[in-house]
Amino acid sequence: MNELHESCGVFGIFGDSKAAEKVYLGLYALQHRGQESAGIASTDGNEIYFHKGLGLVWSVFFDPNVMPRLKGHAAIGHNRYSTKGSGDIVNAQPIVIQCKTGQIAAAHNGTLVNAAVLRKDMEQKGSIFQASTDSEIVLHLIARSQKTTMIEMIMDSLNQLEGAYSFVFLTPDKLIAARDPHGFRPLNLGMLGDVPVIASESCAFDIIGAEYIRSIEPGEVVEVSDSGISSYWLPAASRKSYCIFEHVYFSRPDSIIFGEKVDKVRRNLGKQLAREAPVDADIVIAVPDSANTAALGFSRESGIRYEIGLIRNHYVGRTFIAPHQNKRKLDIKVKINPVTGVIKNKRIVLVDDSIVRGNTLRQIVRLLRSAGAQEVHVRISSAPVKFPCYYGIDISSQEELIGANKSVEEIRKRIDADTLAYLSVEGMLNSVENKGLYGSACFTGEYPTDVPQQFDKFEFCSGKES
Amino acid sequence: MNELHESCGVFGIFGDSKAAEKVYLGLYALQHRGQESAGIASTDGNEIYFHKGLGLVWSVFFDPNVMPRLKGHAAIGHNRYSTKGSGDIVNAQPIVIQCKTGQIAAAHNGTLVNAAVLRKDMEQKGSIFQASTDSEIVLHLIARSQKTTMIEMIMDSLNQLEGAYSFVFLTPDKLIAARDPHGFRPLNLGMLGDVPVIASESCAFDIIGAEYIRSIEPGEVVEVSDSGISSYWLPAASRKSYCIFEHVYFSRPDSIIFGEKVDKVRRNLGKQLAREAPVDADIVIAVPDSANTAALGFSRESGIRYEIGLIRNHYVGRTFIAPHQNKRKLDIKVKINPVTGVIKNKRIVLVDDSIVRGNTLRQIVRLLRSAGAQEVHVRISSAPVKFPCYYGIDISSQEELIGANKSVEEIRKRIDADTLAYLSVEGMLNSVENKGLYGSACFTGEYPTDVPQQFDKFEFCSGKES
Amino acid sequence: MNELHESCGVFGIFGDSKAAEKVYLGLYALQHRGQESAGIASTDGNEIYFHKGLGLVWSVFFDPNVMPRLKGHAAIGHNRYSTKGSGDIVNAQPIVIQCKTGQIAAAHNGTLVNAAVLRKDMEQKGSIFQASTDSEIVLHLIARSQKTTMIEMIMDSLNQLEGAYSFVFLTPDKLIAARDPHGFRPLNLGMLGDVPVIASESCAFDIIGAEYIRSIEPGEVVEVSDSGISSYWLPAASRKSYCIFEHVYFSRPDSIIFGEKVDKVRRNLGKQLAREAPVDADIVIAVPDSANTAALGFSRESGIRYEIGLIRNHYVGRTFIAPHQNKRKLDIKVKINPVTGVIKNKRIVLVDDSIVRGNTLRQIVRLLRSAGAQEVHVRISSAPVKFPCYYGIDISSQEELIGANKSVEEIRKRIDADTLAYLSVEGMLNSVENKGLYGSACFTGEYPTDVPQQFDKFEFCSGKES
Amino acid sequence: MNELHESCGVFGIFGDSKAAEKVYLGLYALQHRGQESAGIASTDGNEIYFHKGLGLVWSVFFDPNVMPRLKGHAAIGHNRYSTKGSGDIVNAQPIVIQCKTGQIAAAHNGTLVNAAVLRKDMEQKGSIFQASTDSEIVLHLIARSQKTTMIEMIMDSLNQLEGAYSFVFLTPDKLIAARDPHGFRPLNLGMLGDVPVIASESCAFDIIGAEYIRSIEPGEVVEVSDSGISSYWLPAASRKSYCIFEHVYFSRPDSIIFGEKVDKVRRNLGKQLAREAPVDADIVIAVPDSANTAALGFSRESGIRYEIGLIRNHYVGRTFIAPHQNKRKLDIKVKINPVTGVIKNKRIVLVDDSIVRGNTLRQIVRLLRSAGAQEVHVRISSAPVKFPCYYGIDISSQEELIGANKSVEEIRKRIDADTLAYLSVEGMLNSVENKGLYGSACFTGEYPTDVPQQFDKFEFCSGKES
Repeated sequence: MNELHESCGVFGIFGDSKAAEKVYLGLYALQHRGQESAGIASTDGNEIYFHKGLGLVWSVFFDPNVMPRLKGHAAIGHNRYSTKGSGDIVNAQPIVIQCKTGQIAAAHNGTLVNAAVLRKDMEQKGSIFQASTDSEIVLHLIARSQKTTMIEMIMDSLNQLEGAYSFVFLTPDKLIAARDPHGFRPLNLGMLGDVPVIASESCAFDIIGAEYIRSIEPGEVVEVSDSGISSYWLPAASRKSYCIFEHVYFSRPDSIIFGEKVDKVRRNLGKQLAREAPVDADIVIAVPDSANTAALGFSRESGIRYEIGLIRNHYVGRTFIAPHQNKRKLDIKVKINPVTGVIKNKRIVLVDDSIVRGNTLRQIVRLLRSAGAQEVHVRISSAPVKFPCYYGIDISSQEELIGANKSVEEIRKRIDADTLAYLSVEGMLNSVENKGLYGSACFTGEYPTDVPQQFDKFEFCSGKES
Repeated sequence: MNELHESCGVFGIFGDSKAAEKVYLGLYALQHRGQESAGIASTDGNEIYFHKGLGLVWSVFFDPNVMPRLKGHAAIGHNRYSTKGSGDIVNAQPIVIQCKTGQIAAAHNGTLVNAAVLRKDMEQKGSIFQASTDSEIVLHLIARSQKTTMIEMIMDSLNQLEGAYSFVFLTPDKLIAARDPHGFRPLNLGMLGDVPVIASESCAFDIIGAEYIRSIEPGEVVEVSDSGISSYWLPAASRKSYCIFEHVYFSRPDSIIFGEKVDKVRRNLGKQLAREAPVDADIVIAVPDSANTAALGFSRESGIRYEIGLIRNHYVGRTFIAPHQNKRKLDIKVKINPVTGVIKNKRIVLVDDSIVRGNTLRQIVRLLRSAGAQEVHVRISSAPVKFPCYYGIDISSQEELIGANKSVEEIRKRIDADTLAYLSVEGMLNSVENKGLYGSACFTGEYPTDVPQQFDKFEFCSGKES
Repeated sequence: MNELHESCGVFGIFGDSKAAEKVYLGLYALQHRGQESAGIASTDGNEIYFHKGLGLVWSVFFDPNVMPRLKGHAAIGHNRYSTKGSGDIVNAQPIVIQCKTGQIAAAHNGTLVNAAVLRKDMEQKGSIFQASTDSEIVLHLIARSQKTTMIEMIMDSLNQLEGAYSFVFLTPDKLIAARDPHGFRPLNLGMLGDVPVIASESCAFDIIGAEYIRSIEPGEVVEVSDSGISSYWLPAASRKSYCIFEHVYFSRPDSIIFGEKVDKVRRNLGKQLAREAPVDADIVIAVPDSANTAALGFSRESGIRYEIGLIRNHYVGRTFIAPHQNKRKLDIKVKINPVTGVIKNKRIVLVDDSIVRGNTLRQIVRLLRSAGAQEVHVRISSAPVKFPCYYGIDISSQEELIGANKSVEEIRKRIDADTLAYLSVEGMLNSVENKGLYGSACFTGEYPTDVPQQFDKFEFCSGKES
Repeated sequence: MNELHESCGVFGIFGDSKAAEKVYLGLYALQHRGQESAGIASTDGNEIYFHKGLGLVWSVFFDPNVMPRLKGHAAIGHNRYSTKGSGDIVNAQPIVIQCKTGQIAAAHNGTLVNAAVLRKDMEQKGSIFQASTDSEIVLHLIARSQKTTMIEMIMDSLNQLEGAYSFVFLTPDKLIAARDPHGFRPLNLGMLGDVPVIASESCAFDIIGAEYIRSIEPGEVVEVSDSGISSYWLPAASRKSYCIFEHVYFSRPDSIIFGEKVDKVRRNLGKQLAREAPVDADIVIAVPDSANTAALGFSRESGIRYEIGLIRNHYVGRTFIAPHQNKRKLDIKVKINPVTGVIKNKRIVLVDDSIVRGNTLRQIVRLLRSAGAQEVHVRISSAPVKFPCYYGIDISSQEELIGANKSVEEIRKRIDADTLAYLSVEGMLNSVENKGLYGSACFTGEYPTDVPQQFDKFEFCSGKES
């Protein structure tokens, strides 16, 4: 049920005669990371051109007049994840500004933990904020920097940020990509021939035929210009904190992120889950599509047969609004339907990647039971999140912290499963190659950075556009 | 790659206070059967109200003023499959007409083989045709019938039709559903409480919480009115001709059609394919999503590991038009991306449900090879179609008959596979329970009906709307 | 207040390499005649292509893919007037059909008085009707004609029609234009170089740079083909019945219709009104825009100063729907605002072209009074309609017949004017050059044709599309 | 030809339970002042809600979900004039920002002459700019102000501005309206019962039934809150500079601005023109619609008959894009058509309000000649603009300064008129009551403020959105 789990997607390219088109395709491949808004900024060396809008990439750029205006050899793009308040055009990215050094465009994936402090501080100094996104903050910092070159100004600004960020910046003569020292969010370097490309996930390289080169390192700032590629470094963080949920559900399984294949990690999560929480059952099925690979891993490890027991209607998605019906009341059946022949009289292992509020999973368990399932054993390919994430996952409501507020048994009752097991934190970390690089704050509460005293994402809002 | 294989979807309900809403949801569940246009006609016992439009169900009914106008306790709906000439609003269904007996709405899934003859005949008698759909023909026949009751008039008309049809008709006081005597296309009866529901596939019952009751039989005409349900019978055909491709790819795997579970048949097809065309390989992968279940069957039977080796981007679909780019040139990478970690150095069995022109499959094989596949063995879960289908599959171009025109070896070369095997006709038929009921004309050329002397679907067009 | 008075507009051209573009512009100039739907059918000599849709011309053809598909050297088009039931796409014209002789497209301005009879008769013979427009009837008649050439078939069919029609027909090799023997609605011939053009009003010639040649005569059928232009004649009617309301409000003042300049007639109406119903006043103002010219005539004749006392907001129009407000409650102030400086303390002659229900006029009188008008004398530049029009004016509700149902004094009270006068029938007829050619049935009840026994426009509807 | 002359429109209301709806209607009445974008910001005392978009008011607020979100008892709105670069959503207003004192929304009509200087200065201090509108500047100044109350901060900021501004500001507890000390642009106070309303023109009061009270004075800052209305004053300018072109063409003739009725002034302009540049002719006609009133004045004074000789097609307007044709090549005939019967063989006085490039006027003169005009004498109801306007009229290209660059005789030749005369500056000023309050810098070059050394409106752009 991927759609509840979104981050943002960023993409950049420098030196391609059809730069904006490449960004378009890249955003297309990264659509799963954010579906509220999309935007592209491009430059021909003189000026920055941009277009952004609400909705899916294809619709934002549907007007045939738009793409031709995005001229130039360099461009960046952004997919924004969906928040409750739709229609929030002022929050669409890239943000393009004019400051003393000229024009800069910025696109951001992540969340700053000192955003409120920085913002309040800058407001005291007389800055104004038009959006509720953190991205505006870094632009204010750049604008106020006393440094003289753009790369210095950006480094200077990034040094003041705490938290998660994978940025792409565009100026008329440079493309700059930056990943925070903890490395919370992925950011990758690819090459299309000799043209450097930046993307949140490697699947965006594949769509344009570019080659994945490597992950941009935590604390690395990559500058691309006519003179080539250079790397600069922010002070190293004492420990890295790659977000393991990028593997669990954010990213596409065909992507490489953090230097690892998502597919492989996700499979390992399923295998480990089978080892940790074995169950005597007839078949393993996934909640499609994000749990498919983990279910496959569970099946492999347990020897229990993998089956396709739930069919997802892909015509639904975000665009679906029953015009004549209360959206809330449209239950899960609009999206998911069980395959009765597979389910009937079976003892089922149902693998999902996480539990948000439990409503959907309860409905799915109920669907399975009404389709004749004998037993439903729910297995979650991640550990329960017990502490808020301050680094880019939307936990504005506490509801997602069901894992913190309720015992596994309580949750089991709520979703009406025969048994329920989460993967252990240890098990999750053992599923990645470089477990030392991944964060576990949301499981342990030991944050790698200071945390906001009062974390209220809506505190930041300059206005809630209707 | 389901989107190349569409039929049409029909739905009807009688006796529900929110009849049109139920049809809306039913069409939603049947969206995979047709995406060019959608329409609903309803009645409150006095008049027939209708709305239809081009595009997906949600968009056709997006305007909040539309649904409230579709008043009444009975309604029918239709999803139309996509043809080359888009924008063909006159072909959208249901068609609603006025004739001597009053108003009738009709929605049709299928193709009549004597359409051209009937049409020419009726044109000679002075009838006019506004669309290129066969559905208009039956309405002309009803209008010209000398019978006195609506059911008689409809029976009279159906008796003159040859070919494939699953119809739902609506008059101000009746819902009538009819399936041709050969039973080419599916049509099913469900119950929502005591309210009868008709649908092409049972998945449309599931979405509204109705219960699947049974298949409407070949030659059965079901009349639903305030007096209840009655069945009438057309003269029996000497043999039935259920379309096996409904199981291969048209229908959703969670549906029941022709009294059989699609999922089970599709799995059997995969198993049989494994028996008929075994191969020494490391993994089995499907071309997502329509071949998933067959691949699972192949895996089960062969013991070769099932893997998810290709990821499909569901944000593509029909709505995608790269505004700035030649649509043709957008290659398969926009839709499908290989999971390199799964593919690399592997000997792969790639299961697909059919080969249309071979272009897509060639691109996929190439993708797999560039992702490091050692060998690619293509297995097709259906037999090659050697003769045109006159009963509802769009074969307007001969391209689909690649199986008739080229040898398997030639096709293998074209798609650049290491080996290629189709399922045998015998093997296909053995995958269904009631093999005696299924047709095989498209494999053998022995048609269950007369066939059109000159079959040219465009001969019928009253106009090609731009 | 032109928007309450619409007829339909038709246009045709034969022999122009950009035929459809010319039709587009022609429809654009005729937009005032109908704003519900627009359509164009074209032919390249082989096939008929068409596109139609709901809304204004520019929006129906906004999609850049549409116009290029309307290929060929000949084309016809239609603007349809607005009815209560919006969204009535099946009623959009041209209607394009296939019958025994091939394809025909037809576009119609007018109303047939024997439509119900013909329709019922043809229904009895087995014809089906998909729309509620009369245009379908003539196509059925053509399809059933026993004649052999298209022109004969069309003549044969027209001979059976009674009532008002100005038709343009298109076949792959001919453009045919026909005006009924009474000549109710206008139809004109123009030339663009040596290319014949047909249009409801001459303003549509002006926009493409064509020259007005002459009115197509009552009963004349003009056939245009590669062989040139020929005229055929229907049996003459004993008397003509040009609709004088075409001059009063339907047509644009810059048009020539019925061989006379609308502007001149409209001015004469105003002058005559001044003679018939003089009043001692300070200024003459018009209800903009349709009464402007008549007000000018009134001013000229009376010597009372013409002023612009009401400003109309042209951004309103049909497209305006206050999304958040009851449309009904939006009073006249949204559309019209008085110029206080002009109105204050003045005795005003307010000229309008007609009174429909009187609601608008009452609101306008009230506006004038609240702007300080000392007296408001309403003068109507037409006579009260006392009998229904069966020839093309929408009088589906009897409300328009306020002139039949109420005395002038009663109406005066209703609109709260100081005095009210209509123009006399005699006065209207004296305002045109050829008064003997104009009908007066709606004033006298002496109809030039049989009239429907039970006239109910909704009787015809084959379905009320939502 | 009003559409070439746009300014912006602002509206505000405080204390109405349906504040946003009132703004909607107000913007509707002010639509002629700007058609590129529209926006509304409202507040319920806690938060500011807003929505803005490109296009006409009705379309920006068409989505039925939008208006209900604009909650609260106070609201402001803005219509933005059209610039060449369409799609400029970042420039849409109101701009809503968050700064140290909380949220503020601002809507602006006018142009600041020290914008570039202030902007550069603030950029040096580290401010960033997201739009190319001046409105952002004042928000930066407010944010940086050291004052403590909002009214003081705003006064502080306004004191630093030079140039033309009519502002409405909204905070959660206040509505503030301000007009610059020279009074370049209009701004008015009305009352809807006891609810204060602010609008650029009084026609926006009329539409909601509010009463016009008075002009907001130059240098007056009106603060509306729960405590009532208070006025504050900026330092007086040594002389006022009301923009006389507001009377010539920007405003609606039914409005009161600068304390004078537009209609009356416009009529005076025509009368004065007749006195200054008499001509022996048969009729006076206007270029519709903006010159109608002036033509009436010319007619009155000269005794030459007023006629309606040109008909304007109101369905054209901004929304018209011939999808298949070069927009440029669509000549004037699409918009304007002569009434031949009025024109033929006449010596014509053609009154227009201004000459921009002369192209349109040349086409109109040509139209008149081809309609048979014997002589065409062009009379312009304003003086030629010889110096750039820095206070709100878009003169980004020098083309508008045809009056500065060419002699009257040269222009006459260009437009091919028999004679051409402009109104004198003196004559213009004599047409208003308080001539001493109006500016004449664009005629004389004596600017009431410093002027930008290098005036380049695009210098300000932070990015040219595609």
